[in-house]
Amino acid sequence: MRIALDAMGGDHAPGPIVAGAVEAVRDREDLTVLLVGDKLRVETELLKHPDAHIDRLPIIHASEVIGMEDKPVEALRRKRDNSISKSWQLLATGEANAVVSAGNTGAMVASALMNAKMFLPGVRRPGIAAIFPSHRGPVAIIDVGANMAAKAEDLYQYGIMGSIYAEHVLGVAEPKIGLLNVGSEDDKGTELTKATRALFQNGPLADRFIGNVEGRDIYDGHARVVVCEGFVGNVLLKAGEGAVEFLFSQLKQEMAKLLPSLPPEAGLVIGAGLKDLKTRFEYQEFGGGPLLGLRGACIICHGSSRERAIKNALRVAGTMAEERVSAEFISQLTAALGGPATS
Amino acid sequence: MRIALDAMGGDHAPGPIVAGAVEAVRDREDLTVLLVGDKLRVETELLKHPDAHIDRLPIIHASEVIGMEDKPVEALRRKRDNSISKSWQLLATGEANAVVSAGNTGAMVASALMNAKMFLPGVRRPGIAAIFPSHRGPVAIIDVGANMAAKAEDLYQYGIMGSIYAEHVLGVAEPKIGLLNVGSEDDKGTELTKATRALFQNGPLADRFIGNVEGRDIYDGHARVVVCEGFVGNVLLKAGEGAVEFLFSQLKQEMAKLLPSLPPEAGLVIGAGLKDLKTRFEYQEFGGGPLLGLRGACIICHGSSRERAIKNALRVAGTMAEERVSAEFISQLTAALGGPATS
Repeated sequence: MRIALDAMGGDHAPGPIVAGAVEAVRDREDLTVLLVGDKLRVETELLKHPDAHIDRLPIIHASEVIGMEDKPVEALRRKRDNSISKSWQLLATGEANAVVSAGNTGAMVASALMNAKMFLPGVRRPGIAAIFPSHRGPVAIIDVGANMAAKAEDLYQYGIMGSIYAEHVLGVAEPKIGLLNVGSEDDKGTELTKATRALFQNGPLADRFIGNVEGRDIYDGHARVVVCEGFVGNVLLKAGEGAVEFLFSQLKQEMAKLLPSLPPEAGLVIGAGLKDLKTRFEYQEFGGGPLLGLRGACIICHGSSRERAIKNALRVAGTMAEERVSAEFISQLTAALGGPATS
Repeated sequence: MRIALDAMGGDHAPGPIVAGAVEAVRDREDLTVLLVGDKLRVETELLKHPDAHIDRLPIIHASEVIGMEDKPVEALRRKRDNSISKSWQLLATGEANAVVSAGNTGAMVASALMNAKMFLPGVRRPGIAAIFPSHRGPVAIIDVGANMAAKAEDLYQYGIMGSIYAEHVLGVAEPKIGLLNVGSEDDKGTELTKATRALFQNGPLADRFIGNVEGRDIYDGHARVVVCEGFVGNVLLKAGEGAVEFLFSQLKQEMAKLLPSLPPEAGLVIGAGLKDLKTRFEYQEFGGGPLLGLRGACIICHGSSRERAIKNALRVAGTMAEERVSAEFISQLTAALGGPATS
């Protein structure tokens, strides 16, 4: 298994990115991580890990970096020798089976979309899945921003691919699929939701489709795959992050007010408890969201990713790039599209 | 000031609904609340408040009730003598200046939309505002579900009306207006967001428009009015409720685990603190969300509303129905539409 890692992508790159790769190759013996980025800077980071398996951590030099605030398409054109484009090239040529990056999400997606030959057969537009927590465990919401003009067939494909992802990566047996909507009745929503519902109800995964899921239902976890337009999913994902941050800041203020009424050691215990809870909300366990619909595998990590998130993303990307998962993507998509698919 | 209150609407109706009305007329001497609902049941509730100002709490009989789970349009047709339709009729005939209901939101909106004569001049489709908390105070998000096929001009009108609402009800001086989007750059988003942005940038409120607001920015409160499509707003509102519920349930579990390490009195102090914080997240202060774009005023309350929420909704509806606010709606909409508006 060979994974191209954008060593320059993310708020804290390259330090914790390289450190995550060092850990990942230690955990999996058949894994090689291609560190894509500025040779000198990556080498300097590798030297901090004298016991690293450097034979399975080759550096692929890329002289330029696309910043987190760069305009994606413009930056891709201007900085030809950037680490994101070079990572995708490694996937396209077969030198890598998967790509992982915590860099500029827009550039990651735009770079992938520029090469339709990379798409799985029958896939019109890839979609990004994000992992939300729920009472029953992780839920995959797809799409959270790759596709700003989704058609019903796209959402339908996201449901199929999301369901394979939930099974193989989240470990959910026969995951239920829901359609994000504004009410529970069949006739609710927009033209897009109505057309999507019809595709699910008449397709081979009809028994997994549980119909409409409202915003608040996400957290009960009855559906472990929830499909929606990229615009809606993106707003939802970022608003969720904002809400958690806001709530924890309010909670901290509230607890600070209570502290004078509590014995001194209580503050430490509560502080540790809150920190533990907040970590659980930061979804580092799966390292990031997969970009579904491509040959090979791709995990897009949060810009704030550190060692643990990168290590987990490399593990998940490895699982997704394995023969059996790729084969299942193709066979289920083909079945859903009603016969041998054409790209 | 005369407000029609749907006494039968909501999960706990009619008890706490009538109780909220009793409190509201006590607080404001020029207020009359028309209690719309089953005469016998409402009378029974009123008798529980022997010191109520019953001269300003007349009952308007409606023999039928639209349930929270009823399909809106179908129920409105089947149950002609329902308390929601009757409340709107009181507004249409001028017997009431405002309407308040904690009943079936879909039926409230559908009933209002059936009578375009009720719309403010120039308004194409009314929108519902919901109040979100933020670091700088309450933020109005519009639309959260009245309009499932919004055009750019609708979102533009929501910005104008939301800004008047934020000023007069939320008490924000010169509230900034933001456009919910998937990134901060001008060219981000959909055709709808691009067209909406152009209207704001070229209109009379251009100096209040701060451009794109991402999901996580809502909670920083830089924009106190955020406009979006009804589908997106509805998902966002319900997902926010779900996230808060989920987070508090996790928090409770976490605290329960910590309790054995804390002295007994700490549990009580923490429990009270969390309850206080949760209440603040339930937005009862403004009683509910206004349906903006109608002559008179309308507040749609959460189905779970109790006495305090209803009392506050009646206060807010009273403010919004006042001469100066209504006049400002009309003059600013007219100015924004570039001349005397036609309906």
